[in-house]
Amino acid sequence: MTLGFGVVGTGAIGREHINRITNKLSGGKIVAVTDVNQESAKQTVEQYGLDAVVYQDDKALIADEKVDVVLVTSWGPAHEATVIAAVEAGKYVFCEKPLATTAEGCMRIVEAEIKQGKKLVQVGFMRRYDSGYVALKQAIDKGEIGQPLMVRAVHRNPEVGEAYVTEMAVVDTLIHEIDVLHWLVNDDYKSVQVVFPRKTKYSHGKLQDPQLFTIETNSGIVMNVEVFVNCKYGYDIQCEVIGEDGVAYLPEFASVVTRKEAKLSSSILTDWKYRFMDAYDVEIQDFMDSINKKGEPQGPTSWDGYIAAVTADACVKAQQTGQKEAITLQERPVFYSENTVLERV
Amino acid sequence: MTLGFGVVGTGAIGREHINRITNKLSGGKIVAVTDVNQESAKQTVEQYGLDAVVYQDDKALIADEKVDVVLVTSWGPAHEATVIAAVEAGKYVFCEKPLATTAEGCMRIVEAEIKQGKKLVQVGFMRRYDSGYVALKQAIDKGEIGQPLMVRAVHRNPEVGEAYVTEMAVVDTLIHEIDVLHWLVNDDYKSVQVVFPRKTKYSHGKLQDPQLFTIETNSGIVMNVEVFVNCKYGYDIQCEVIGEDGVAYLPEFASVVTRKEAKLSSSILTDWKYRFMDAYDVEIQDFMDSINKKGEPQGPTSWDGYIAAVTADACVKAQQTGQKEAITLQERPVFYSENTVLERV
Amino acid sequence: MTLGFGVVGTGAIGREHINRITNKLSGGKIVAVTDVNQESAKQTVEQYGLDAVVYQDDKALIADEKVDVVLVTSWGPAHEATVIAAVEAGKYVFCEKPLATTAEGCMRIVEAEIKQGKKLVQVGFMRRYDSGYVALKQAIDKGEIGQPLMVRAVHRNPEVGEAYVTEMAVVDTLIHEIDVLHWLVNDDYKSVQVVFPRKTKYSHGKLQDPQLFTIETNSGIVMNVEVFVNCKYGYDIQCEVIGEDGVAYLPEFASVVTRKEAKLSSSILTDWKYRFMDAYDVEIQDFMDSINKKGEPQGPTSWDGYIAAVTADACVKAQQTGQKEAITLQERPVFYSENTVLERV
Amino acid sequence: MTLGFGVVGTGAIGREHINRITNKLSGGKIVAVTDVNQESAKQTVEQYGLDAVVYQDDKALIADEKVDVVLVTSWGPAHEATVIAAVEAGKYVFCEKPLATTAEGCMRIVEAEIKQGKKLVQVGFMRRYDSGYVALKQAIDKGEIGQPLMVRAVHRNPEVGEAYVTEMAVVDTLIHEIDVLHWLVNDDYKSVQVVFPRKTKYSHGKLQDPQLFTIETNSGIVMNVEVFVNCKYGYDIQCEVIGEDGVAYLPEFASVVTRKEAKLSSSILTDWKYRFMDAYDVEIQDFMDSINKKGEPQGPTSWDGYIAAVTADACVKAQQTGQKEAITLQERPVFYSENTVLERV
Repeated sequence: MTLGFGVVGTGAIGREHINRITNKLSGGKIVAVTDVNQESAKQTVEQYGLDAVVYQDDKALIADEKVDVVLVTSWGPAHEATVIAAVEAGKYVFCEKPLATTAEGCMRIVEAEIKQGKKLVQVGFMRRYDSGYVALKQAIDKGEIGQPLMVRAVHRNPEVGEAYVTEMAVVDTLIHEIDVLHWLVNDDYKSVQVVFPRKTKYSHGKLQDPQLFTIETNSGIVMNVEVFVNCKYGYDIQCEVIGEDGVAYLPEFASVVTRKEAKLSSSILTDWKYRFMDAYDVEIQDFMDSINKKGEPQGPTSWDGYIAAVTADACVKAQQTGQKEAITLQERPVFYSENTVLERV
Repeated sequence: MTLGFGVVGTGAIGREHINRITNKLSGGKIVAVTDVNQESAKQTVEQYGLDAVVYQDDKALIADEKVDVVLVTSWGPAHEATVIAAVEAGKYVFCEKPLATTAEGCMRIVEAEIKQGKKLVQVGFMRRYDSGYVALKQAIDKGEIGQPLMVRAVHRNPEVGEAYVTEMAVVDTLIHEIDVLHWLVNDDYKSVQVVFPRKTKYSHGKLQDPQLFTIETNSGIVMNVEVFVNCKYGYDIQCEVIGEDGVAYLPEFASVVTRKEAKLSSSILTDWKYRFMDAYDVEIQDFMDSINKKGEPQGPTSWDGYIAAVTADACVKAQQTGQKEAITLQERPVFYSENTVLERV
Repeated sequence: MTLGFGVVGTGAIGREHINRITNKLSGGKIVAVTDVNQESAKQTVEQYGLDAVVYQDDKALIADEKVDVVLVTSWGPAHEATVIAAVEAGKYVFCEKPLATTAEGCMRIVEAEIKQGKKLVQVGFMRRYDSGYVALKQAIDKGEIGQPLMVRAVHRNPEVGEAYVTEMAVVDTLIHEIDVLHWLVNDDYKSVQVVFPRKTKYSHGKLQDPQLFTIETNSGIVMNVEVFVNCKYGYDIQCEVIGEDGVAYLPEFASVVTRKEAKLSSSILTDWKYRFMDAYDVEIQDFMDSINKKGEPQGPTSWDGYIAAVTADACVKAQQTGQKEAITLQERPVFYSENTVLERV
Repeated sequence: MTLGFGVVGTGAIGREHINRITNKLSGGKIVAVTDVNQESAKQTVEQYGLDAVVYQDDKALIADEKVDVVLVTSWGPAHEATVIAAVEAGKYVFCEKPLATTAEGCMRIVEAEIKQGKKLVQVGFMRRYDSGYVALKQAIDKGEIGQPLMVRAVHRNPEVGEAYVTEMAVVDTLIHEIDVLHWLVNDDYKSVQVVFPRKTKYSHGKLQDPQLFTIETNSGIVMNVEVFVNCKYGYDIQCEVIGEDGVAYLPEFASVVTRKEAKLSSSILTDWKYRFMDAYDVEIQDFMDSINKKGEPQGPTSWDGYIAAVTADACVKAQQTGQKEAITLQERPVFYSENTVLERV
């Protein structure tokens, strides 16, 4: 079955997904689009030669019978309402992060989804589809390093603009580690503390950079996560899991090695877009395949969206207080208890 | 436009391409299949739920108006006739290696294609679509290592069966290096000499293993290529280009690095299927996109198929004589002179 | 001039230094030995065929006119008295760690040395002589990574016995990082906090393992140091300095790389003795050369011994309180202000 | 016992050894020196503050009773006469390469030494003392990669002057691989063939650069050795041994790894002096220790010097003919049959 996609939000990320579904992947078709800027929606249809209706708003789009999946790529504050409306209409949803801008909003989506009795929503945390993270998780799940005790993660960006302030290190940057790390070790977070090292001269008045987060999980795993967004040298994502029997590393992004000018070297990316480009393709293809084969998506759930929101709130608080802050989740509903991770691999 | 594919040969590789086109990529549809074993053709249609006609033979399949592309995945000796028939019918062709089993057969295809006045044929040398080789070629083309002077390539396999004899080191194994290396340095081959090192105890009476090929190009680049098909430890493809200003390496296949049991290590593949899996997808998607956007495929041409055949013949002769053997190509037709490599990247 | 060494303590480390000075290095000669176990002292003279007097105690040994240097390799609690006596006699001293078992004891040595008006004492922190650390420091000092902002260090041991308890992670293990890290970034420590991750099953009741130390310096550099003494897989010392313009790593210990059994791997040491073996040689040769050429040793000073003692005390306290503990040093005497690091390299 | 050294030749390498024996190592003392340039000999004594007699010539120096070892660091053509005179006087000899400038000359030394009934001579092939080569040989000897089948070696230099012509690629450069490779695999050479790849633009009229040597051993191991002396990028020594069960590599020279300016990189040496600096120390210390402990040196023998001379002759011939040339050694005398390699390790 070809899934009909209705796209809410035709900005950059929306168009990328439209292109992906239309020209690279198998199993989906864009049948409807909408945007608060109707002109943008129309241009998109034209640009990609889509056979799609342009709707006035998300409500009308959701109501279209040809729309099987609502792809939410509007701006963050609009996500919650669209997702809930889609869920209540029994439509599948692929929602770019954040699922909602507050933990409460995420919980309302969780409740709406449980009411439907079926998993409908996937959140766009693409790292879980990166071949490196998948391989790292497999190594851990197979017991190659024994029980994890510590994690060390690094999220570095060459530079950010003036608009990027201290809090955004959590909500824009760390958010990806927040999602991927608990999935990696199959555990829940308990607390977080933040230390601000000496600030790089390349930062500005409203941005502490770098930042070091120490996150503890329920089972006592300690995760040191560095966010350094003006590191100058490149876009660099590292992850290392230290277990009772050994250590496993996220693979470096593969690149040509050269011997030249007295250096043995390989390239580090400078643009984040290339780092997880394949992961976006795999993510959307898996989303479509899972719906077609199992009747529900198997990626990050609404509950994962909720975990991200609660954890991000605690991290921001920890930035402000300098103290260890609790990360307090509600009890995980049975509805989300099934671990479908390994089936996908 | 969705391209209609007619598949000639529904063995393992045929079915993989059918699955790829049907379930993973965008722009193609299987509309017809045939196989000398009609039962296999029928099972394939059923297995993948295809909306495709099963034909008695390639002639009938080629005649189907819905067939835009003939995908040739039959056994080698059958390729030439199918490809020529398809070309004469003005159909696009994607032909798995070998294009034909003789240099003369390849030349007949070349002539048929030139007669049509349009590039129709792409040969299935997938390595040119591997992200590592693409990056290596980019580094060379950009002049990062200056003029290439030497190449060192390694093609190792964990083990082969009794049916694999000395000559197959050329026609089954080295053939991939034959195609990719001249493309990599943009040069033509001139001669080849083979040396047989001490034979591994894991080989058998009819197989010299390993083998070392020294291939020279017109401009004097010397390529040392090792074929070692009972190397035991893994499937390992290496390529290193030594230039006037530096050296560039094909990236190692990315894998999780571990520190465990007194070793810092990463995995080496043991099954060749995983090494170029992505390259097959990119290859077929590029084939379809090029036809749709430019009206002709941009990958390895019939002429490349001819080069492979002539070179393989010389390599086999060199295995037998122990002498340096000339690799003598006819003059490259203007028709194939256009270098479209960089456009694709 | 050949320096006459008087050795106080003929246990394992004492004998190693005796062998080193006698059979591998140039410029020194063992002329006297003593040990609380006189039999051990005598055996040592015999074992190495020394032309050396066996003294009853350190006092007598120090008084020997042929003794230019007192090599202190007795057990820790005896160090202070011997060092002070030697300094007061105007003799050079090479003292294995600890300089003294308390910060006050170290300060008494500092004062005795200042009174002599001349640097006489070197403490046996050999890492500063490891070619890897030297190269790392050179990279930092040359500004290759800009101003350091963070350090990440790892000190892992395959396993320890029952006698090794939580506190020893500081005084036996972390002590090496304590000395080498402030030297590396040329800064003083300000505070330390300790987190205990989930305990490895390979540890025992009296040992928290692993442990994570977060040490801040006066200029705001944050150092995350992991001590993990039952890591099972090997003896592994890592150090990474993250600066404003880049990151620099302590080189991995060089070893043969192999491709074997589906792994690309290199060995990790399991015995710490081999890791810094060369550094011990360089350390003692430099000690002798500096005295001969400049009239005073140029390695870790009494003041460095004092820094180590104060910092270790704070780290132990932080283990107990779980809080951030201040590291409060007295003001650095002008006597120790000269930075002679770069001259040595 | 302290060995008395008489040094014949006080040029650069002679002075380095004098400094090494005098100021870094244990067990030797320079007691006599001579040089065709007497002024140079006198200056050397002064420069290093030696307590040594300056002799008119090698004959007089050899006759000095205090001279236990003759260190031959004069220019190549003078080696043979000095070595033979020293051997006939029953003195130990450490002779820098070449042992003699002809195979016949080497054979005369071999015969003189056999006549003395005792190994007296060590040739200055220092690579056998490099920790990397030692570790590689250990891995091979322990059977970690099974029976060696192929070797790939690379000898690259950043650049050479006009005086360096084609033949010197053998006698000045390849000569080190010639010595170390047969030792590494414990086999004798049988033939050599040379191929000249396209010449680098950085070379000059009298120098083919790079050059590729294919050397076969008696047991059929094939060694590909690249000599590339204007490679521009650095001084780079590589060695890889491919065996029946795996591959082992000479370790890269350890250096600080950095992440900087979009590159993950480590340094490659540009000056050959630093590459084997430690090996020179180990070599001379082992030479002295072996004489003291076993009564004879254990490093490269006169016979190894003879092997090098015969092999170099064949390589030069192969440069000229372009054909496969035989490497024909006389039968190895029983006198040199003892394999003392492993004892040293």
